[in-house]
Amino acid sequence: MKSEPTPQPTLEGQALLASLASPADLKRLEVGQLPRVCSAMRGFLLDTVQRTGGHLGSNLGTVELTTALHYVFDFRRDRLVFDVSHQCYPHKILTGRREGFDLLRQSGGMCGFTNPEESEYDLFHTGHAGTAISLALGLSLATQHEPRPPQVVALVGDASLGAGVAFEGLNHAAASGARLLVVLNDNEWSISKSVGALARYLSKIRSNRLVQRAQQEFGGLVAAIPLVGRKIDRAWQQIGEVMRHAVVPGHIFEELGVTYVGPIDGHDVELLVEHLERVRALDGVVLLHILTEKGKGHPKAPTHPERVHGVKAAEPAKSAGADSAKLAPANGRVPRPAGPAYTKAFADALLRISERDLRVHAITAAMPSGTGLDAFAERFPARFHDTGITEQHALAMAAGMAKGGLRPIAAIYSTFLQRGYDQVFQEIALQHLPVVLALDRAGLVGGDGPTHNGVFDIAFLRTLPGLVLAAPRDASDLERMLELGFRLDGPFALRFPRDNCPAEERIHKSERAAMEPGKAEVLAQGEGLVIWAYGALVNQALEAHERLAASGLHVGLVDARFAKPIDSELLARHAQKYRWIVTLEEHQRAGGFGSAVLEALNQVPGAPPRVRLLALPDRFLEHRTTREEQLADAGLDAEGIERSVRSLLTPAHV
Amino acid sequence: MKSEPTPQPTLEGQALLASLASPADLKRLEVGQLPRVCSAMRGFLLDTVQRTGGHLGSNLGTVELTTALHYVFDFRRDRLVFDVSHQCYPHKILTGRREGFDLLRQSGGMCGFTNPEESEYDLFHTGHAGTAISLALGLSLATQHEPRPPQVVALVGDASLGAGVAFEGLNHAAASGARLLVVLNDNEWSISKSVGALARYLSKIRSNRLVQRAQQEFGGLVAAIPLVGRKIDRAWQQIGEVMRHAVVPGHIFEELGVTYVGPIDGHDVELLVEHLERVRALDGVVLLHILTEKGKGHPKAPTHPERVHGVKAAEPAKSAGADSAKLAPANGRVPRPAGPAYTKAFADALLRISERDLRVHAITAAMPSGTGLDAFAERFPARFHDTGITEQHALAMAAGMAKGGLRPIAAIYSTFLQRGYDQVFQEIALQHLPVVLALDRAGLVGGDGPTHNGVFDIAFLRTLPGLVLAAPRDASDLERMLELGFRLDGPFALRFPRDNCPAEERIHKSERAAMEPGKAEVLAQGEGLVIWAYGALVNQALEAHERLAASGLHVGLVDARFAKPIDSELLARHAQKYRWIVTLEEHQRAGGFGSAVLEALNQVPGAPPRVRLLALPDRFLEHRTTREEQLADAGLDAEGIERSVRSLLTPAHV
Repeated sequence: MKSEPTPQPTLEGQALLASLASPADLKRLEVGQLPRVCSAMRGFLLDTVQRTGGHLGSNLGTVELTTALHYVFDFRRDRLVFDVSHQCYPHKILTGRREGFDLLRQSGGMCGFTNPEESEYDLFHTGHAGTAISLALGLSLATQHEPRPPQVVALVGDASLGAGVAFEGLNHAAASGARLLVVLNDNEWSISKSVGALARYLSKIRSNRLVQRAQQEFGGLVAAIPLVGRKIDRAWQQIGEVMRHAVVPGHIFEELGVTYVGPIDGHDVELLVEHLERVRALDGVVLLHILTEKGKGHPKAPTHPERVHGVKAAEPAKSAGADSAKLAPANGRVPRPAGPAYTKAFADALLRISERDLRVHAITAAMPSGTGLDAFAERFPARFHDTGITEQHALAMAAGMAKGGLRPIAAIYSTFLQRGYDQVFQEIALQHLPVVLALDRAGLVGGDGPTHNGVFDIAFLRTLPGLVLAAPRDASDLERMLELGFRLDGPFALRFPRDNCPAEERIHKSERAAMEPGKAEVLAQGEGLVIWAYGALVNQALEAHERLAASGLHVGLVDARFAKPIDSELLARHAQKYRWIVTLEEHQRAGGFGSAVLEALNQVPGAPPRVRLLALPDRFLEHRTTREEQLADAGLDAEGIERSVRSLLTPAHV
Repeated sequence: MKSEPTPQPTLEGQALLASLASPADLKRLEVGQLPRVCSAMRGFLLDTVQRTGGHLGSNLGTVELTTALHYVFDFRRDRLVFDVSHQCYPHKILTGRREGFDLLRQSGGMCGFTNPEESEYDLFHTGHAGTAISLALGLSLATQHEPRPPQVVALVGDASLGAGVAFEGLNHAAASGARLLVVLNDNEWSISKSVGALARYLSKIRSNRLVQRAQQEFGGLVAAIPLVGRKIDRAWQQIGEVMRHAVVPGHIFEELGVTYVGPIDGHDVELLVEHLERVRALDGVVLLHILTEKGKGHPKAPTHPERVHGVKAAEPAKSAGADSAKLAPANGRVPRPAGPAYTKAFADALLRISERDLRVHAITAAMPSGTGLDAFAERFPARFHDTGITEQHALAMAAGMAKGGLRPIAAIYSTFLQRGYDQVFQEIALQHLPVVLALDRAGLVGGDGPTHNGVFDIAFLRTLPGLVLAAPRDASDLERMLELGFRLDGPFALRFPRDNCPAEERIHKSERAAMEPGKAEVLAQGEGLVIWAYGALVNQALEAHERLAASGLHVGLVDARFAKPIDSELLARHAQKYRWIVTLEEHQRAGGFGSAVLEALNQVPGAPPRVRLLALPDRFLEHRTTREEQLADAGLDAEGIERSVRSLLTPAHV
């Protein structure tokens, strides 16, 4: 299948695709016309997504599957639930949103995931993996007593199936008696190569034709049975029953009570239509195993599928790719030179520390490249652990490693850490084990939108006793904080954003205050008002500080460094010294850093100081092209900070 | 096995048990002496645990298994990781803590779970299910390169195996090449009957002897092969390979690369020793499937294993059993008459609502009795869903149901909701779906200790946009809040403690302020100081208010009702009217209700009011006999509140 050449899009196919305004139009075609639609769609994706940036590989892989699903089912009444939903582009094309691709993932443009606000065909706005089976089961249970219940389809990738919640969903669905079609889109990859025993098992099914041959030859044997006597006949019957399951690929699923069908070539759209027609009649939970090729049709895909997972926008459209690129400035802003991405600064610092400390092991939950750990994996393969999409397990395993004397670090995006919250509580914090958590993408993420914004971690982490929460303003402090984290005897979390470090560090690292838990660093003394900034926004605060100074307003500036423990002593002094304390953070207002400042000041005797919290508003923020635009929207860029500070220093407030 | 009578403890056995000060003493015995030790231990457990209260059934079931484990392994260097760890009593007995059972789960006494502070043999302090495999894998990976690596054993119940994190752990362990022994203690029960396809599969192994018979007869067939010709012979070889797996119980595990051994009678200690000796030599991940009987030896166990899961203390020792019993007062306190448990009030209110609204479906994650949903299950079996220990799936499924037009309610203990935090975020809050969350055991839980305290939920929930968080002070408000929750078009969470409602409701429900999101209720006007209390602690505040009034101090009192949205308008008025605002909550100070009050007041113009937060301190609180004692420790009982208020009203503060 992998070696088969991908048909090139034809002009006729392009016209056909352009004529499809809705799935109803698709259904009017002959099945024999579908391959042309698919080729045209693949051409369209290669053309547009490489221009706008976005998830490419997974969508190239699901062109035929999505087309077949919309051809066979009617998702105005049937229900299609995408897992993760980054593979929804063909679905968006077929449901009247082809033109939306011009502004894919950009400010005011189309979302990169399914989004009910865009279309009646999008049921959920998701981006975290593994929950589609559960969502679909809920839909099925809710509608099963209707006179003509809809067919509910969950489209799940093979890597998602390794997520615990997917297993929970399948385990319950199989026993529930509900009707549900799970389409397993098996491309052997999540973002990087799928890992774990189940992935190995799927791969065995994929490659092992021996089982199929045995099944055929068994037919011949059964014909010979009457010859070998009555006693053996009885045993045969029993063995036949056992064999019926044993030689079917997908035995694991069959054992759980799931009807397994497959594996099927996922790039043969006519074959897919045929199988979907067949399985839609089956009762109970059906797993249809589809084999696809991630990045199908992309020249680089056969050798490097991970490179076509998410692609960055070509110039001149700007996409906030933090991986290792220098960030271009947002439109209309004064360009600032950018340093390395925080991810890169983290990866480099970790390598240096790990050269010195052999106890350091690094863990990722299926994100070796996104977290920058691929460099670690190459340098220290025996100390690197990719657990698959299993944040819960990854964190509990880290706790076990720490108990066993290692110094594990789990690098997990802030938003995905939510998946392992209970393990941070029970396995790590309650045991007070020295596990370092590196929370990449903490803050706003631009194009990926609200499923990927990491804006709750301060609140859910700082309520847990004994955790130290740090956030660096630049690469030097990131490394010093990481060093501190590995020295502590309890849990330590480091949050940094999807952006680039400042190229120029204003204070040389040798001249900075010592890095100690709960100790802030004063960057400037001032009068009347002091800004307490946390993490990367210290840079925006520095810029605001300069602008204010230029107009004769000399305010104080503190890099808080830690949200927990917080520097209560310095806060108490500042409560005396300054009339206003302004806090600044890239996090929800509710329960965040500013809230921690208020709590600390609440314990200071005397009249309480005036505090103003600058943080994100209490709603889910939609995607914008860049993080910088999102910060500006929330008034957390330098201009916004300057504006807030000036308003507090006007006579009305003073 | 179930029908076999349990041997009675003998005086000799009791003396033998009493002579065991450590596992080393056990190892000196002949294997033939172990059954007597086990009988004596079972007698000891029946005697002591029925007196002190605690987990009984699971511990009666693991007497032989634990004895065999300590006999075969040396857990000073080998590693024993308990899943949940409520089944650790035999382990505590054998590791020198027999006398600790006098004060089991009581203030100053022994913890009901494993606890590293008690013994070098206790590795982790756990109480949430499913993480032992991950912890054990981490330990194994951390120690595998030592010259003589310890054998790492994870002891896991069958219900825990249905938890997603356990699957994640097994999936990774099997592919990791690490050495690990997973002992599956299969009693077909968690707290209630285990559910899900995997449980059904285990049950099939348990009962189905057909497979074993087929295996034997297959042996006879193989002998006959040479007779049937060369071609068939080749097919036979292939089939033989397939059969070798197919007829082994535990095929699912074998397919994943786990060596399955079992099932073994878990009450035959000599057989267990024999098998443990055998499997300890095996490489890779081994799953030893042990069949036990929950509550083995307890007269009620064979018919009602759920009744012997956790038992309440006999009089006169007091144990805070909230299930449906009236609570006895803590020692030395003035007895207050108690109303029904909050759990019971919730269950009754839900039944009434569900009679009227057929869209209401109730979901539990393996806690039908603990959450009070068993009554619902009996009345509306088709609208009741027990998903097993799968909070993640339960919450995502609830989202699917809500999308399908139902009004699902998921009743989950506050502490276990942490396991499904990401689903509350993505599947429920981000989609703004009308799912009702009932958080039982929100607050302090007494004997179960820090693994079960529900003291982080306000912080981790109120940071999510669009959620409404309510907490009732009594049964009437609980019902009115629940009614409100089912009327809203978005997510709603209701938190209530492990305690009894007040018997006497001070204001008749017909005279109370309307129940609206974000509207507090003023219970008393006052001067100088107002108490804003949240949830059940309003009762303690009422008591403090009375005492203060009796001495001429007339302070204000507000039932805040909602932590989100908070009544900012009333707070703003109170900021003008009162010199002090005192907040009161049964939750961590960091990010909790008081923190929400501070945030709201931060947006009120003018000089900030003086606020004092009364909440739990920033550490994990150890178990105490009752919640009331824990509240008193934290200064959150009526006396503590009175004390705090008086101190604020002394001249030094005024």
